[in-house]
Amino acid sequence: MERAEIAIIGSGPAGVSAAITASLRGKPVLLFGSKDLSDKIGKAHTIRNYPGLPDISGEALRAAFQRHLDAMGVTVTEARVNAVYAMGDYFAIQTANETYEATTVILATGVVQGKPLPGEEEFLGRGVSYCATCDAPLYRGKRVAVIGSSPAAEPEAAYMAEVAGSVLYLPLYDGDPDLPASVQVLREKPTAVTGEAVVTALHTEAGEYPVDGVFLLRDAMAPTQLVPGLEGSGGHVAVNAKMQTNLPGCFACGDAVGLPYQYVKAAGEGNVAALSAVEYLAAQKRNTKE
Amino acid sequence: MERAEIAIIGSGPAGVSAAITASLRGKPVLLFGSKDLSDKIGKAHTIRNYPGLPDISGEALRAAFQRHLDAMGVTVTEARVNAVYAMGDYFAIQTANETYEATTVILATGVVQGKPLPGEEEFLGRGVSYCATCDAPLYRGKRVAVIGSSPAAEPEAAYMAEVAGSVLYLPLYDGDPDLPASVQVLREKPTAVTGEAVVTALHTEAGEYPVDGVFLLRDAMAPTQLVPGLEGSGGHVAVNAKMQTNLPGCFACGDAVGLPYQYVKAAGEGNVAALSAVEYLAAQKRNTKE
Ligand SMILES: Cc1cc2nc3c(=O)[nH]c(=O)nc-3n(C[C@H](O)[C@H](O)[C@H](O)COP(=O)(O)OP(=O)(O)OC[C@H]3O[C@@H](n4cnc5c(N)ncnc54)[C@H](O)[C@@H]3O)c2cc1C
Ligand SMILES: Cc1cc2nc3c(=O)[nH]c(=O)nc-3n(C[C@H](O)[C@H](O)[C@H](O)COP(=O)(O)OP(=O)(O)OC[C@H]3O[C@@H](n4cnc5c(N)ncnc54)[C@H](O)[C@@H]3O)c2cc1C
Repeated sequence: MERAEIAIIGSGPAGVSAAITASLRGKPVLLFGSKDLSDKIGKAHTIRNYPGLPDISGEALRAAFQRHLDAMGVTVTEARVNAVYAMGDYFAIQTANETYEATTVILATGVVQGKPLPGEEEFLGRGVSYCATCDAPLYRGKRVAVIGSSPAAEPEAAYMAEVAGSVLYLPLYDGDPDLPASVQVLREKPTAVTGEAVVTALHTEAGEYPVDGVFLLRDAMAPTQLVPGLEGSGGHVAVNAKMQTNLPGCFACGDAVGLPYQYVKAAGEGNVAALSAVEYLAAQKRNTKE
Repeated sequence: MERAEIAIIGSGPAGVSAAITASLRGKPVLLFGSKDLSDKIGKAHTIRNYPGLPDISGEALRAAFQRHLDAMGVTVTEARVNAVYAMGDYFAIQTANETYEATTVILATGVVQGKPLPGEEEFLGRGVSYCATCDAPLYRGKRVAVIGSSPAAEPEAAYMAEVAGSVLYLPLYDGDPDLPASVQVLREKPTAVTGEAVVTALHTEAGEYPVDGVFLLRDAMAPTQLVPGLEGSGGHVAVNAKMQTNLPGCFACGDAVGLPYQYVKAAGEGNVAALSAVEYLAAQKRNTKE
């Protein structure tokens, strides 16, 4: 596969703005996200403080962003990124089905809402995982529960079913999951993960299920979980005014880097992150020539 | 005069965005600028990277911003601010005709283009001035040259004519200046200010004029000249991620705080500055109650 110059993870206002500016600067981008761009755009009722678009509905803002991406020839790669590894002079970007490569990465993943499940942090790496593709092999023949925040989690649950002994699937959304018959769908709200050295059970409002592993497949992951070695600051990604993180070639923007959580702030930072990535690529090219 | 809670200086994308967000948070603002908002908006040919408004002309973006201000009930106070003084718990804001008061100030003045005139920096305060209203009394009966970047400089030149012995006016723009008959209009490009202890002459491409003072009335002034005590950094205003300057209650955003010079970056920072000002006002209110 060809290595992209700029990969952008997240298709909210920050990622969209970064994609537009990078394209304008002649850098085609690999933009990971959703065809709805961002729930936080589409689901807003009326937005009154995005300058130039007074009193716009979330749906209309989403459509305007989509038109802008279309005008720039940017398409969204619909995939959840499970991990980003800094490999020295490039990044390896892992999704459920593929591994991509890019010289620079812009993290525009937004913020994870809600609190972690009780036991989630305690058992992380000891039965709790955020990435089915990465960790499924460890659960060959074992009992696994998969908690899915959106239909995007279904392909990963289906993959688990090929490997694990048994799979419980707890959808946190409405609608019928499209899953192999061997997967048992539970319409119950998860309340806790328990265990001793390792996970032994998932608790729900309705009962307790003995399992060896719990996979939490949320749409957004804390970027510091997504990118090993990334420096955080108070729950956000630490960046400077140029939106540079501590990892050379890795930039971040939008809600992911801090308050206030606002569309135009996210879009402004996406623009800055893209220009910094373009600058970084130019400097790399100069160094290679020398 | 009533003291405003938030004064915004500059009506480009940064100032417009700050005004919109502050108004939405229930803080009516005093917005200083021009009825054209910003030359840097109106004069742009096609703007391709303001997310949500693909391929928009500068004039159309200006109109969109104006509609947004109208929708929020924000009017622009057309005046050039000559100085902002930190008075402890408020700021005094000086224009040619009035002094305003505000609890917080947001500097959104953009960047000054072009190089200083040779001799300008050397003779600043020794015959060179940026503010006719402030310094006219020092030139009673003397010979003065006024260099005006736009018609906004004309009222100040007219005021000079009431005080000084003679006034030369050098417009750096097209169109007929509207000035008292006693003012001599020179259509010549200024090239240097010279003198010894103090200014003695203004040079132009066409000749040399003996004067005691040279007033440079640009549309934008470096904010660190505008606000005594304001900390700069490499030609820009020094701010943190909340757009706070070193002066409590004084915020800055847009081109004035640094590169890249971009619309959506300026708008994003204006939004952040406004929310920081709102937060500062709330904290002040709590302190007063205690
Ligand atoms: C109901 C509501 C109303 C709001 N109203 C306003 C308002 O009026 N004004 C205002 O300024 N702000 C408002 N906000 C805040 C605004 O929505 C956010 O500040 C903004 O969306 C942040 O943009 P972002 O690009 O940083 O992140 P997001 O919009 O959250 O986008 C992040 C995107 O990245 C994707 N993503 C995350 N992780 C991954 C991964 N690992 N792989 C692939 N994709 C991933 C997500 O699925 C999402 O699509 C509102 C928010 C909500 C929820
Ligand atoms: C021809 C041109 C094309 C451009 N194209 C693009 C583009 O395609 N994309 C992009 O992102 N950016 C573009 N830019 C850059 C963009 O214009 C600036 O980054 C942006 O306007 C900065 O916004 P701002 O609000 O910080 O400052 P400005 O837009 O400069 O606004 C500052 C305002 O403050 C006023 N002001 C200053 N001092 C005072 C004072 N003392 N009293 C009262 N008012 C004052 C000024 O008169 C002005 O109206 C372009 C610029 C130019 C010149």
